[in-house]
Parts: sequence; structure tokens; C-alpha cells
Amino acid sequence: MTRPVDPRIAVVGATGVVGAMTLALLAARGYRNVRAFASYRSIGQIVSFGGDTRVVEHATPETLAAGDLDFALFSVGSRVSQELVPAVRDAGVVCIDKSSAFRLEPGIPLVVPEVNGDRAEQHEGIVANPNCCAIPLSSVLKPLHEAAGLAGVQVATYQSASGAGMRRMEWMRNLRPEEHDLAMDWTFDGVELEEETKLREETRKILELHELPISATCVRVPVLIGHAEAVWIELERPLSADVARRVLADTPGIQLEEFPTPRKASGNDGIFVGRIREDAGRLLLFLACDNLRKGAALNAIQIVELLMARRAIPA
Amino acid sequence: MTRPVDPRIAVVGATGVVGAMTLALLAARGYRNVRAFASYRSIGQIVSFGGDTRVVEHATPETLAAGDLDFALFSVGSRVSQELVPAVRDAGVVCIDKSSAFRLEPGIPLVVPEVNGDRAEQHEGIVANPNCCAIPLSSVLKPLHEAAGLAGVQVATYQSASGAGMRRMEWMRNLRPEEHDLAMDWTFDGVELEEETKLREETRKILELHELPISATCVRVPVLIGHAEAVWIELERPLSADVARRVLADTPGIQLEEFPTPRKASGNDGIFVGRIREDAGRLLLFLACDNLRKGAALNAIQIVELLMARRAIPA
Repeated sequence: MTRPVDPRIAVVGATGVVGAMTLALLAARGYRNVRAFASYRSIGQIVSFGGDTRVVEHATPETLAAGDLDFALFSVGSRVSQELVPAVRDAGVVCIDKSSAFRLEPGIPLVVPEVNGDRAEQHEGIVANPNCCAIPLSSVLKPLHEAAGLAGVQVATYQSASGAGMRRMEWMRNLRPEEHDLAMDWTFDGVELEEETKLREETRKILELHELPISATCVRVPVLIGHAEAVWIELERPLSADVARRVLADTPGIQLEEFPTPRKASGNDGIFVGRIREDAGRLLLFLACDNLRKGAALNAIQIVELLMARRAIPA
Repeated sequence: MTRPVDPRIAVVGATGVVGAMTLALLAARGYRNVRAFASYRSIGQIVSFGGDTRVVEHATPETLAAGDLDFALFSVGSRVSQELVPAVRDAGVVCIDKSSAFRLEPGIPLVVPEVNGDRAEQHEGIVANPNCCAIPLSSVLKPLHEAAGLAGVQVATYQSASGAGMRRMEWMRNLRPEEHDLAMDWTFDGVELEEETKLREETRKILELHELPISATCVRVPVLIGHAEAVWIELERPLSADVARRVLADTPGIQLEEFPTPRKASGNDGIFVGRIREDAGRLLLFLACDNLRKGAALNAIQIVELLMARRAIPA
């Protein structure tokens, strides 16, 4: 397909696992004015762009600001985002940042298009892309909140190696089966993992429910691609599993599946949701989602497309 | 070590993954009067027994009843247990059954020695060994119940391939990393997995809290040995994470660990518990346990040792 408008897009962090997926999805969606940027050590590297390729350019505030761009999609660490994004934004480029650098910054929209797309239009040059687990979680919680009012959420995650980048994927590929283990390999403040704090705070911001009790245990599992979550949902008003199932079936971006798993979700755009049932006064469900697609690259591209459709970009 | 009394023990299902572990642990604990039994197709097979070996004998009601035994430890499917156990019990052999055949039968004790060892003495020839996830869960819940009263439990499991037997382990060993996936591979009644029902009902029976709300989501992860559980606990009275940590540290069979994982727990007798914290009015923790040891073979041997220590066996 060819886009009616073909914006000029920079993919920053093009040699990473999310950057590579961003390039692949942009190519598949018909974008052509796409350039690849990365750090100094990747300059000149050739990366795939659909059937085509791109030569990696050096990502600096100056090169990006001078790049005559409409959008820059960042999938770099949050420290690098903090260095690059404000300068690029100041040059008039709309920045979609996938790091955690700006997600909780007041005034910066944190957007899942199906959940709070309207917020994206209020951007002042930066839109933050949420954490890979917060995207599917808020997608599932939003319609249930509208149907019956959220009172509390417990979530246990099953997160894949690709969430930790290419090196972790390679490491996992080389493990002997006896070495497979779970991990809780995020920064730890002595009580909670940073990933658990992100999941709570970002989900609250996306849903605009700043006091919602959300309690998370985040776990890395020896799966390459695809995150899953076991979720318990307390609601203010009664909602049967049957009605919840219908509500979710009618929600854009959600696909019902009896037993969602990372491998079934992997390679798909949808958030797979199943095991919807009531138990002890709560609604339970299990979800799986391709963390590189809807959990990262796809969501960022959908933000670009939403801004273009609503003409919420600088002229 | 040499046992003061050396009971005559049959290991039934000796060629399975739990049977092999039972033989290994019995040998390591100094038992010598141990025989190996299995189905017709394994007759004559040589199995390890510590540095020694055993020749597999045919497990039938007749061979076991005529075997001049004190104990028979069954790790066979529940249908085979139903065929063999009552006849062997009628011959005066105390049967420790690791299948689900008798676990919820009224009058048959379902025992975790550290949790409800007293119940074992009330046996009438059969003691049931609980499900591999119910053993560590009830071990953790019991002291917390005594400290502050349980009001409700939510648990998400991370269960290893060895829980599904040797063939599943072999299958997992041969998977390419790209094929690794989560699974929910238990019998399904349309609402709940059989494993989830077992976990609820068995934990209630062990704790003698027959109305306790327990809500479980059971998931198989691509790990070979070791089950883990993310647990949310609602208590009737306030209990800080610090006090909970001290209570658990003082509980026999439990070992505190900052980040328990299956691989750390694998090869160990203890139940590893960590991530103990409070959130949104609940206590959270994460546990890992060797499902072949404390989750199965070790617990069954501990039942034998408890009955011997209390002379609760036929003279």
C-alpha cells in the first residue's frame, strides 16, 4: 500500500531489536522517506528496510535537527533519549520516544492510540510510547473500566528475552535447556523492580486513574518474543465473564483466543486475550502480545498515523 | 547416613521422572531395602539407585501385596493409582500416593509434613501427597495464616516441563529457541484448568480452610526443573512485610532468597521465598521450589519418615 502522505521519518536506534522492527513495519506499510540512525559505532552499517536497505547515519542532535524530518521514532536507552529528543523536538520534528525518559513527564502525552488517542493531539513535539506491558494491560483495562469501573488490578507478567534487547536474545539462544531459568533482571530499589513501578505508573497515566491500585510482579521467562500477563481485575460494579468477553471482543486491537500464548501472538498486531473468567469476586484474564510490535514499534507507528490523520503535526 | 530402622519400600513408577528422583533421594538418605516397580513394558529395566542399581519389577496388585513391604511410594498416573493402591493398602502396606486419585477423598490425609504432619498419623493405609504447586503454596500460607489470618489468595504459576514428565522434558530439550512458548496444557473444563482446581481445593484441604478464596492461573514455562509462583495474600489482620519475612524465615522448609528462581531452587530441598512486600493492602511474594523434590519425591519420603518417627505404621 502507498501512504496518501509520505512523511519523512527517522528511525533512531535502527540497529536495535525494536529499531529493526520499526523499519520492517514502516516498509511493510508503504513508507518510503525513511532514514536509519544509530550511535557512532554503527555508522555505515547496512540495515534491512523491507526488500530494500538503508545505510545507518550518525544520530546526533545536529544531524537529526538538520535532517528535514517530520517524525523521529526513538528506540534507544532513556539516557540517549534525554540527550537527543529535546534538541530534535526544538528543530520542529515530532518525536515519538519509546524509552522511559519522558513517559511520566507531566504535559507529555503517553499514548496507546486505541486507549487515549485524543491525548496525542495535545503533544508539544514529544509523544511517549508506553512500556511493553503497559500497552496491552491498559488496552484491556480501558473498556472494562468503561463497562464496570476499575477498583484494583493485580498482574503477574511473563516477559520475553527480546524485551531486554538483542544481546539478551543471543544469550538465550545459546543457553542449554538445563540453563533456562526465570529472571527478575530489572533495576531493584529494594522493594519493587523498576519494571513494576513503570507498569503501575504508566497504566495509571494512560487510563487517567491516578489512584488506581495496581500491583505487579514482573518476571522474565525463557521465551524469545512475546510478553504475557495473568491479570486479576476488581470492578466497582458486577460484570459477568460473558459480558466482559463481549466488551473485549468489540474493542479494536484486541483478539479473543482460548489460550493466548507469546508464540501465537508473535508476528501479529493484535493483543490476544483469553481465559476470561470470574473467581472470588474478581475478573481474571490472560493476555499475550508481540512486545516488539504492539508493545513497541507498531504502537509508535500508530501514533504517527493518528497524528497524520488528525493533522496534528507542524505544517 | 544409615537409618535406625530400614523399612522395606517399593517405589512404584520407578522409570518416571519422579520415580527416579524418589530412588535417588532414598539412596542418598541411606535406605537400602528399596525395590523398583513399574508397568509391564519396563520389567527388567535397570534403574539407578544411588551408586547402585535396581531391576524393575512388574507393578501389579498381587506382586506389591505379596512383596513383604512396609511402604509403597506411588508416582504413577491417577488411573493406575486407583487400580493399585487400594489392593496394596489392603495387604497392610502403607501407601504414599503422589497422584491426584485420593487427594480430595474425605478421610484420606493430604500431607505436607511441615504444615499438617499430625494429619498423617490418622491414615488408614493411604496418605496422599499434594500437587507440586500446592505443597510450596500451603507451606508459605500456613505460618502467615497463624500470624494474621488468611482472607484470600491469588496465585499465578510458572511451572516447568518436568511437571509433565520425561517425554515433555525431552520435547523441550529438542525445541529450537524460537519455538519456546508458554502453555496451559492441563485438562480444561471450559472455565478453569484442572491444575487450577487442584491448587485451590488441595490448598484448602491442607490448611483446613475450606472456604478460603484461592484464585489461580496456571502456566507452563520453558524451564526444565523448578516451579515458581507469584502470590498475592489478603490477611485479616495487618502484617508488615518485615514481620512476614521473619515469620517465613522461622518456618522449617523455607529459605529466604532475594530473587527466587527455579534454577536456584533446583537440586535443593527448601522452598525459596522472596520478593516479600506490601502493596495495595496485600502481601506479595514470589516462591520457587524443585517440583521433583519438595514438590513430589522429597515430600513423600518426609511423610514416610514422619510416620516412622511417630510409629504410625502397622507393627
